[in-house]
Amino acid sequence: MVVRDEVRKMKSVAPLVAALDNKTRCKALIKVAECLVKRRAEIFAANKKDLEAAEQNGVADAVVKRLKFNEAKLNDVIAGITQLVSLGDPIGKITLDRELDDGLRLTRFTCPIGVIGVIFEARPDALVQISCLCIRSGNCPVLKGGKETTYTNRILFETIYEAVIQAGFPEGCMLQVEQHNEIDELLTCDGLVDLLIPRGSNAFVRYIMDNTHIPVMGHADGVCHIYIDKNADIDKAVNIILDAKMQYTAACNAVETLLIQRDEAFLSVFIPKLVKALSENGIKLRGTKEVTDLVERSMAEEADNTEAKSLDYESVDESEFKEYLALIVSAKLVESVDEAIEHINLHGSHHTDSIITEDKETADRFVQLVDSAGVYVNCSTRFADGFRYGFGAEVGISTSKIHARGPVGLEGLVTYKYKLVGQGQIVGDYASGKSVFHFKDLQ
Amino acid sequence: MVVRDEVRKMKSVAPLVAALDNKTRCKALIKVAECLVKRRAEIFAANKKDLEAAEQNGVADAVVKRLKFNEAKLNDVIAGITQLVSLGDPIGKITLDRELDDGLRLTRFTCPIGVIGVIFEARPDALVQISCLCIRSGNCPVLKGGKETTYTNRILFETIYEAVIQAGFPEGCMLQVEQHNEIDELLTCDGLVDLLIPRGSNAFVRYIMDNTHIPVMGHADGVCHIYIDKNADIDKAVNIILDAKMQYTAACNAVETLLIQRDEAFLSVFIPKLVKALSENGIKLRGTKEVTDLVERSMAEEADNTEAKSLDYESVDESEFKEYLALIVSAKLVESVDEAIEHINLHGSHHTDSIITEDKETADRFVQLVDSAGVYVNCSTRFADGFRYGFGAEVGISTSKIHARGPVGLEGLVTYKYKLVGQGQIVGDYASGKSVFHFKDLQ
Repeated sequence: MVVRDEVRKMKSVAPLVAALDNKTRCKALIKVAECLVKRRAEIFAANKKDLEAAEQNGVADAVVKRLKFNEAKLNDVIAGITQLVSLGDPIGKITLDRELDDGLRLTRFTCPIGVIGVIFEARPDALVQISCLCIRSGNCPVLKGGKETTYTNRILFETIYEAVIQAGFPEGCMLQVEQHNEIDELLTCDGLVDLLIPRGSNAFVRYIMDNTHIPVMGHADGVCHIYIDKNADIDKAVNIILDAKMQYTAACNAVETLLIQRDEAFLSVFIPKLVKALSENGIKLRGTKEVTDLVERSMAEEADNTEAKSLDYESVDESEFKEYLALIVSAKLVESVDEAIEHINLHGSHHTDSIITEDKETADRFVQLVDSAGVYVNCSTRFADGFRYGFGAEVGISTSKIHARGPVGLEGLVTYKYKLVGQGQIVGDYASGKSVFHFKDLQ
Repeated sequence: MVVRDEVRKMKSVAPLVAALDNKTRCKALIKVAECLVKRRAEIFAANKKDLEAAEQNGVADAVVKRLKFNEAKLNDVIAGITQLVSLGDPIGKITLDRELDDGLRLTRFTCPIGVIGVIFEARPDALVQISCLCIRSGNCPVLKGGKETTYTNRILFETIYEAVIQAGFPEGCMLQVEQHNEIDELLTCDGLVDLLIPRGSNAFVRYIMDNTHIPVMGHADGVCHIYIDKNADIDKAVNIILDAKMQYTAACNAVETLLIQRDEAFLSVFIPKLVKALSENGIKLRGTKEVTDLVERSMAEEADNTEAKSLDYESVDESEFKEYLALIVSAKLVESVDEAIEHINLHGSHHTDSIITEDKETADRFVQLVDSAGVYVNCSTRFADGFRYGFGAEVGISTSKIHARGPVGLEGLVTYKYKLVGQGQIVGDYASGKSVFHFKDLQ
């Protein structure tokens, strides 16, 4: 397949997809759900082939787990589709309606972005979610999934594509590319592809950004922080830290760095509890010298308790803090919430950062000044997710401040255009003063 | 000056500027207007130095006209500031307020983008407008204007900066760079600069895009079309074409290509009127052979009218149509509105395109299917402008579909963040089914 030729055809089809009404787009989603259920035996059989191949190729267990597409995963994606259908139409929303002058009316309304290339990891449910978000929002996706799910993706794509065609979508409204080298061809399609959404490792996302003129939406890393204020509820803090590190350690919204307020009374209670929680859960601590000194003192005091597990820790310079995606967490002390904010803004990845405090004023200051997509108070950073935000699904999480920020659902997949309807008006008459704008907002 | 060091400081200051309340930002703008008026003699004197230098250096008349900053231009920028103050606060708008579960509330609110680099042409009024848009929206601008306005820009910047500091803005909230080589240094400041807005030639904008990892908002060209439908009011059509070509020929929203419906009865009336209008106004026509044949026939029929001026025309292939920014217009015939739409979507620059027709259904189809920032009915493409849209001013016009599209005013200079406030909630409880989201939208 020559990707460019297919994408050029898609570019002509995209305005027709954009013009489909809400009913047709919803009908298509319901049809997709029906067809997925109807063909589930075939889909599971294809998935079995992928799983067998993965086993033969010695693919890591964590990856194999994500490859699996079974009855439970099918139910999840069907639930997601149902939620997407129930959400309001993201297209055709009027966001500005202004009479510039008598008989000259400016209207701004939302419309699909057009052709969107999504490159994602080996997860069959991701293919369904991304396709359905695009169908709901009137966009044309070019899909490239991980090679470990070739068989499953092929039948899922075929099933979804046939369903939308039956529902009245035009031919060529969706495209799947299977070969890794076709990604490079896709990157050269600026002017035809309106947006690229790469999901994957930092290095991969950076590679995409460096090798295309197409706008890219994605996040390159997720160094999330939790700041534990001296007015924190310590049990809440420990519970949240464990969840944020362990609930899904390899996720971009897992916590990587703890910032702890330098307050003696607070530290004397907090540090022993933190040491106990981390050691019991096999989490390694990489702290500044100041932190590891406190840890050592705490462990020495606990030494008579022979039941206590020993904490794995190491003293490092804060310049060595990083994204681990593993059972490791960095820690340093800060003088105040302001020092925490400064650290986060300079060293974080503007993804999701949380403060644990019972002091509302401190929390408000943190929320106001931390420059991240998600600023949380007394909860786990792991909540940063399209489904948990009630978006039905997400195409990714954006750490860019341009266009969409945070989990990206339907709203991140629309743009807008300005319609101006006149009766022959020319600018010359306004420049000369013959006519004057009166700018009247309607409604 | 080392740009990177200054920008790094600005990055720390940006959250403080973002936190300033509406009153402080409005007060600052009023102060700016006052100070500009107070120091106008100095400003005009500086402008005189720029004008003298321009004359000595043989700068083109069109450029000199834009350099001039006199009482009239000052009044214009003061009027713009007054309009900006009167517009609603773009910051802190709540765009989502959702209870995810009892005691777990998600709020999305608008906030400034942060540090914005704007590189603009030699126009002193542009410096004032861009600065004021940034002040109103809580952003920190790094300003680089054209070198021909060095003296004027220096005093304008000094005046504005002093005014905002007096109004309570933090030091380092605005920055001006004067040397052309500092642009290249600015391009390397990814991670510190959140957005770049280059204004200028296609080649310049493309250079910026190719040499930075910072997101860029801008348009690379403006090939605007007017489609004249067989149901057009011909007098309106001719009047609009002349305005769109001549009212400001060098503007990106000037028309470059006419698409005319192939309908014999219509053409027999329209072509003679078009030929007359273009020839009388010294506009050259570059048409396909089909168009120039019609033109020749029309001119032959008019040959007995010795008063008639002769039209300057040439027959070209449509692949030679381009952006002229001069008194030249391309033309070709199309079978239908659909062919016009296809031509515009494939060959246009997605800037602004207009249809002239009295047929509402045809107009609606054009508006729906043309994939441009501005889709117009029966009016001049020259209306595409922030002031004419009632935005007070604009930092530029975006032909990208990502983030902001069309004239970019205050709304294009904001992003948002998600605040999530809980009472110790962890994701593990929702994953295990112990807790369940209830997604209740508030208000």
